[in-house]
Amino acid sequence: MRFFAFIKDGTPGLAVETASGFRGLIADDASYPGTLDELVRNGKLERAAKVLAAGDPIDRETVSCTLPFSRAGKILCVGLNYADHAAETNHEPPPYPTVFVRFNDNLVAHGADLVRPAASEQFDYEGEVVAVIGKRARQVTPETALDHVAGYTLFNDGSIRDFQKATPQWTLGKNFDATGAMGPDFVTADALPSGASGLRIVTRLNGEVVQDSNTEHLIYDVADLVVKLSAVMTLEPGDLIVTGTPAGVGAARKPPLWMKPGDVCEVEVDQIGTLRNSVVAEG
Amino acid sequence: MRFFAFIKDGTPGLAVETASGFRGLIADDASYPGTLDELVRNGKLERAAKVLAAGDPIDRETVSCTLPFSRAGKILCVGLNYADHAAETNHEPPPYPTVFVRFNDNLVAHGADLVRPAASEQFDYEGEVVAVIGKRARQVTPETALDHVAGYTLFNDGSIRDFQKATPQWTLGKNFDATGAMGPDFVTADALPSGASGLRIVTRLNGEVVQDSNTEHLIYDVADLVVKLSAVMTLEPGDLIVTGTPAGVGAARKPPLWMKPGDVCEVEVDQIGTLRNSVVAEG
Repeated sequence: MRFFAFIKDGTPGLAVETASGFRGLIADDASYPGTLDELVRNGKLERAAKVLAAGDPIDRETVSCTLPFSRAGKILCVGLNYADHAAETNHEPPPYPTVFVRFNDNLVAHGADLVRPAASEQFDYEGEVVAVIGKRARQVTPETALDHVAGYTLFNDGSIRDFQKATPQWTLGKNFDATGAMGPDFVTADALPSGASGLRIVTRLNGEVVQDSNTEHLIYDVADLVVKLSAVMTLEPGDLIVTGTPAGVGAARKPPLWMKPGDVCEVEVDQIGTLRNSVVAEG
Repeated sequence: MRFFAFIKDGTPGLAVETASGFRGLIADDASYPGTLDELVRNGKLERAAKVLAAGDPIDRETVSCTLPFSRAGKILCVGLNYADHAAETNHEPPPYPTVFVRFNDNLVAHGADLVRPAASEQFDYEGEVVAVIGKRARQVTPETALDHVAGYTLFNDGSIRDFQKATPQWTLGKNFDATGAMGPDFVTADALPSGASGLRIVTRLNGEVVQDSNTEHLIYDVADLVVKLSAVMTLEPGDLIVTGTPAGVGAARKPPLWMKPGDVCEVEVDQIGTLRNSVVAEG
């Protein structure tokens, strides 16, 4: 199943892909099943898909996308999780996943503007796949880890590199307002290869390919991440694991390549979709 | 004003200190004003204090404390923010606040058990003061920064040191289930010195003083933190800034001093209160 959240004439809605294109409902409709945040928590994605499929045709070109998830409990971002990216940033591949946190309220939807802050010109892209937790996970085993993943979406982990590197922890450089993007589609796990592995991941800046890898190159794959994170903390439905970015980031280039106002950045992953955002200057 | 949240016979309640001791209401009472999470967001702390003061006497000894805040939007923890602690951990005092994140769902209340995980024996204490945001802050100036702080509470930033140091980012070592504590009292800013500065902060393990400093020694004081964090991201009412710990942590001692099952850890700050927790082994 493939869902996307939208807003139409000010009212939020949710659509699902059917054999006859996307169909959906808005929150004013009596049978509207709720947001994706709610559906991954209450486990009613399948029922929602049926209800939405009986809704109205939705033309993706005439509605605005909204974030698939806007109140994730935890957004756990994994750094240095492709060997080529760890190498380009002069880090040893880590002995355990390197985890930092982003907050949901600095993410923008597909089609919305990323904002380069006035405080820095070092605005970098990072294309990534997000695993969405659908079932509580606490100290799970590798065999059952993927049972806890409801599905996948895309992420641009936009980073302000000078702030990221100014202190030992990356939090500030990863959490400037409106510097990250997520979406547009949420694709359920059953519609993708196991663990969303073996999918080409490409980032383009103004049409030029700047990252080009495959999710099979993750050092810690999605099952590993669920095992290792759930060994530490309870993962709850609606938590997000942002799985890491491959080589090609702007900071590692000589000279560095930064996103600037007017640029368009796209993250595309086979079978999941394309996340596209323009860049504007802080107003 | 001094508040504390509690649970009595399974029903949550909120109490305020009055001239005749603590008085309060439980959620079943028609005039119950809501949780502290709600009151800092809707700005109705003062009105709530009046309503609670007309409630029933609350004996702190016969009710169980609950977390003052259980759904903070962001918990921003500042590392290396006392010069003596930065030195004992072989870090340069940072050029900008070093920020990591904790999640609300791994914090326990005053009087509840901290859990030493089976995965590690390196369970360390860190006594800290928390500033609670009461008014949205975005790029605020030093002159007005403290207007955005509703009040203060206490924190034990319990840390699993081997996991904290296993990767470049501290997130996992700081977010094991039930390893941190917060509370018990939320004291409004008007009842404390400006910026909660000049207060003695002491941590005791089994009655022995292990940290003993004063909030006047913060490298970035509360106003600085609001300025510098709000330069990056919008701070929302209900967000928490955990301001950092002074020297004396167990990891810096020779031999190291770890919390173990049966221990009692207390964090006491003048005029704010005492946060006390026992330690148990993961069951």
